[in-house]
Amino acid sequence: MKTAQNHSFWIFLLSTLCFSLLGQSHFYPPHWFRGLQESQLEIMVYNPKGFGDSPKVELPSGLQASWHQLEGAAGSAHYLFIDLDLATFQGSAFDIRINGKKYQYQIKEASSHQPQPLNPADAIYLITADRFANGDPDNDHPKDMNEKKYGRENEFGRHGGDLQGVIDHLDYIQDLGYTATWTSPVMTNDEFKESYHGYAITDHYEVDPRLGNAETFRAYVDESHKRGMKVILDVVYNHSGSQHFLNLDPPDSAFFHYDMRKTRSNFRAVNRMDPHVSKADLKKFGEGWFDDHMPDINQQQPEFANYLIQNSLWWVLEYGLDAFRIDTYAYPDQDFMAELARRIKLERPSFFIFGEIWVHFPEVQSYFAGGNPFNKYNSQLDAVTDFQFRYALKESIDNHQSWTGGIAKLYYRLAADHMYKNPSNLITFMDNHDEPRIFGELHEDTAKMKVALGILYTMRGIPCTYYGTEILMKETKNHGVIREDFPGGFAGDAINKFEAQNLQGREADFNQYLRQLLKWRAQSSAITQGSFLHFVPENDVYVYFRIVEDETVMVVVNSNSKESRAVDLNRFREVWPVVGEAKDVMSGEIAPMDSLEMPAMSIRIFSRKP
Amino acid sequence: MKTAQNHSFWIFLLSTLCFSLLGQSHFYPPHWFRGLQESQLEIMVYNPKGFGDSPKVELPSGLQASWHQLEGAAGSAHYLFIDLDLATFQGSAFDIRINGKKYQYQIKEASSHQPQPLNPADAIYLITADRFANGDPDNDHPKDMNEKKYGRENEFGRHGGDLQGVIDHLDYIQDLGYTATWTSPVMTNDEFKESYHGYAITDHYEVDPRLGNAETFRAYVDESHKRGMKVILDVVYNHSGSQHFLNLDPPDSAFFHYDMRKTRSNFRAVNRMDPHVSKADLKKFGEGWFDDHMPDINQQQPEFANYLIQNSLWWVLEYGLDAFRIDTYAYPDQDFMAELARRIKLERPSFFIFGEIWVHFPEVQSYFAGGNPFNKYNSQLDAVTDFQFRYALKESIDNHQSWTGGIAKLYYRLAADHMYKNPSNLITFMDNHDEPRIFGELHEDTAKMKVALGILYTMRGIPCTYYGTEILMKETKNHGVIREDFPGGFAGDAINKFEAQNLQGREADFNQYLRQLLKWRAQSSAITQGSFLHFVPENDVYVYFRIVEDETVMVVVNSNSKESRAVDLNRFREVWPVVGEAKDVMSGEIAPMDSLEMPAMSIRIFSRKP
Repeated sequence: MKTAQNHSFWIFLLSTLCFSLLGQSHFYPPHWFRGLQESQLEIMVYNPKGFGDSPKVELPSGLQASWHQLEGAAGSAHYLFIDLDLATFQGSAFDIRINGKKYQYQIKEASSHQPQPLNPADAIYLITADRFANGDPDNDHPKDMNEKKYGRENEFGRHGGDLQGVIDHLDYIQDLGYTATWTSPVMTNDEFKESYHGYAITDHYEVDPRLGNAETFRAYVDESHKRGMKVILDVVYNHSGSQHFLNLDPPDSAFFHYDMRKTRSNFRAVNRMDPHVSKADLKKFGEGWFDDHMPDINQQQPEFANYLIQNSLWWVLEYGLDAFRIDTYAYPDQDFMAELARRIKLERPSFFIFGEIWVHFPEVQSYFAGGNPFNKYNSQLDAVTDFQFRYALKESIDNHQSWTGGIAKLYYRLAADHMYKNPSNLITFMDNHDEPRIFGELHEDTAKMKVALGILYTMRGIPCTYYGTEILMKETKNHGVIREDFPGGFAGDAINKFEAQNLQGREADFNQYLRQLLKWRAQSSAITQGSFLHFVPENDVYVYFRIVEDETVMVVVNSNSKESRAVDLNRFREVWPVVGEAKDVMSGEIAPMDSLEMPAMSIRIFSRKP
Repeated sequence: MKTAQNHSFWIFLLSTLCFSLLGQSHFYPPHWFRGLQESQLEIMVYNPKGFGDSPKVELPSGLQASWHQLEGAAGSAHYLFIDLDLATFQGSAFDIRINGKKYQYQIKEASSHQPQPLNPADAIYLITADRFANGDPDNDHPKDMNEKKYGRENEFGRHGGDLQGVIDHLDYIQDLGYTATWTSPVMTNDEFKESYHGYAITDHYEVDPRLGNAETFRAYVDESHKRGMKVILDVVYNHSGSQHFLNLDPPDSAFFHYDMRKTRSNFRAVNRMDPHVSKADLKKFGEGWFDDHMPDINQQQPEFANYLIQNSLWWVLEYGLDAFRIDTYAYPDQDFMAELARRIKLERPSFFIFGEIWVHFPEVQSYFAGGNPFNKYNSQLDAVTDFQFRYALKESIDNHQSWTGGIAKLYYRLAADHMYKNPSNLITFMDNHDEPRIFGELHEDTAKMKVALGILYTMRGIPCTYYGTEILMKETKNHGVIREDFPGGFAGDAINKFEAQNLQGREADFNQYLRQLLKWRAQSSAITQGSFLHFVPENDVYVYFRIVEDETVMVVVNSNSKESRAVDLNRFREVWPVVGEAKDVMSGEIAPMDSLEMPAMSIRIFSRKP
């Protein structure tokens, strides 16, 4: 017994020594899935200590398989790339031996969840995970992570919010009326600064320990699906965090655009479509760094491209997600982006993909949407973020009508929908995690805020609302402050605003307005399935309709902040008879339709059913 | 002898009596042409006294021919429509007998002039014929015309300019450096008011007697061609003048949109492409009247459509024109407009057609250009007027750069050229007959004016300049005043500014600048044939290039009106080596290319040849 113990001890000691000399091998992806349309798989094996001058790699027999290494970078010897064709593979694992050591690589069942694509019946709730609710105080300050700026007093530091906090409030979110959540990226951001936003990924396969772990993320997904809510993952292909192992120890000098390390992007997405663009501008846009601590990925590097595409598929298949929101969509190589979408839709045709297109002007935004005839890449995007709607909405409510300004700007932006294959999928919003909160921009005018929200929730598109809108959060200062903590989400908060009874005055009133609007919206077939039809605004008044066989909704907006407006309904008789009555959906009153007087800065929503 | 005289007298008296009883028959078109691709011809015969209850119409034998009348309008009986197929016709005339009276209808040779299409080597000079020069004082006040407001003191009245005035100054125009003229419409406008602008046509086959006659117009065309200058005819399909016989005595109630007589157009061309447009808005846009004295034509009425298309062909073939500028292009029925272009290009493939698209926003403007994939009508337009360039140019020179404003606006508008099949054909301009003169808009700042003109003449596109720009005309008040008289064009003018020696100070300086720029432009292969490449403006400075094998032109604009800017030329080295020298084309100096300091509000143009 003692001898045996000693024997075990020596074996342990020897193997520990060998491991520490040889280093640990990491496999990316850590496992893969059976039954996919695309049978090719490329496993990146990373060992910080390398594999020696002549690695001995034994691949599974019976599979078409090969391996190779890259050359020319200090880290080249630390990586192996194993290419496999799994077309004929039927098992649940196979062995790979590297320098005699055996690794079992698992081929699992993918999640059985059929992705539920976003559609106009949805209402998205956007969350900055670090700032929403702290569900697990134990994960707030992991000692072995690089960021040391913890504490809610730090605008750009970590505040402690996490996935458990989101899970804890799924009922709250659903009760407000939202059907889908989009949280800031959940992958590890082990950066020295500003890690809280999540867009500087350092491990593509790990949930950031400060947000939770794989189990928490799975619980977030499953608890959402249990409620019939959809899950949108925020993904980033343009850059990684500086502390990503592929940046610290790159297998190839071409993995990142290192020649542009000191050059920021010009942030001019129009470079992608401009027929007159210079090579220098286009390079600066696509290869310039988004921020100095976020190295710019070269998606044309084949092994990195495989790594990223497989990583995306892995999240979809491992957890059973519904949609991607792709960060900084316009910046990465557009051939790569099209291939990424193709690969995902090959495996999960109903998976919904929308790109962040943070630009000005409709012709720039629409270029990136799927099916745009001017775009040779065939992005296959189901939608793009509708920044033009946001800009125009703000202008419409904060200015009187001119020929193309005020409410006419919103009209013109919607009229430009001819450039979209499917404008009803556009992701509309009033503000988001990057833009000033609109309530602050609207000078804390609740009448204006109600008009803005009323338009958002009745307009064509899939509306997305930033967390805290429901309690009139209003910060506009900078993104660290715009992403302010939700009161009640953190221990010691003086007030818990997740509880409706704690809301007072204008907050309570607006909160009720928002809830009522969302609940009505969800059951209105005209809003969730109807076509959109509008009339040229006249005299500050904009009138539009949502129409389906069993319901017609009329929305009337008086964007004049000082004067009421009489509206002659005769103009709309092609869709709205000037007889009888209609239901004012917010007041519940039945209103005669022979005349309509709109108070200054007001919106009214009428429904008629045959 | 006496008997014979008496006999003649009685015949004369009898036929005069018959004519006055029967009325005079007018044939539209008055003659036609041989050798056309399209052999169908529909002749409209109009007799104000009508053709009786059962007109007897004898059509030429040997031709496929038929005739018909329309019904239901008071004037229906006053019109005959004769349809002929001339495929097998070889002669030069045929006879038509109507109620026994014989009419000889001539089939002539079309002009042998091969249309010379506009291209970027051209520079267009736009003239309001009534206001440019009075070459024939005898035609100023025809007694039998409806307009009585003659006299240069009347802003919206007739001033006496005419086609002879244009002919007299073709040398002047060519000497300035222009290669093509576009005059306001020359067809008769026998209106009671505001006939001077020419857009209220009352006779589609006659030159307005106050501008000249068929011979004067032919001389204008021939004298232009003799000088190698191109002729652009301004044509109007959206409306006619109120005094048009087809309006006064319509053959069919559907010739004009009479139900919209009291409704103005909403002037929202975006209605044409908006997928959400209401029927009411679209009708108002397309069928609402442009002005209350210009009845809106129904181009879907088949006989009127034939009349208009044949009329257009008639002018092209009769006189040998080079191009049409189509007024209010977006307003008429778009199927009709496409068919019109198809018919003209069928007979004269090199004929150039551009449409006036007076709109805001690039996606609205580009929709109408030929080859736009969003436009189902296939307009076949070679170009549209580039109002977006005008608006952005003004903003660029009158504001400092912001993210999308100032000179950045111009950059964005050009970057939107991906929406055009051929952006180099766009008709660029600083102002025109409808818009305030830009020199007034730029606060009479000659530095700004030189930058604006420098950009116009070096930019992609075909530049168009309104008459009087060369002498710094500056009116902005209204279109009657914007279209001010050219000093020296009218008898009694205190000064003749057609003579360069009469110009002084800033006028002389700018005039010299314009002439020099145009002359250099005409011989620069980079400008006339080169590609266009630009760089994102930085710090108010915009730099672009025109490039062809044997020349590269660099244009540098400092749009800051107060501060000079040092420009680092290293940024442009992909097309402009940062070594050696280049010629400053305006100063003629050879400048070293190692550094460049741009004074406030300035433009410099450099040329390099290998």
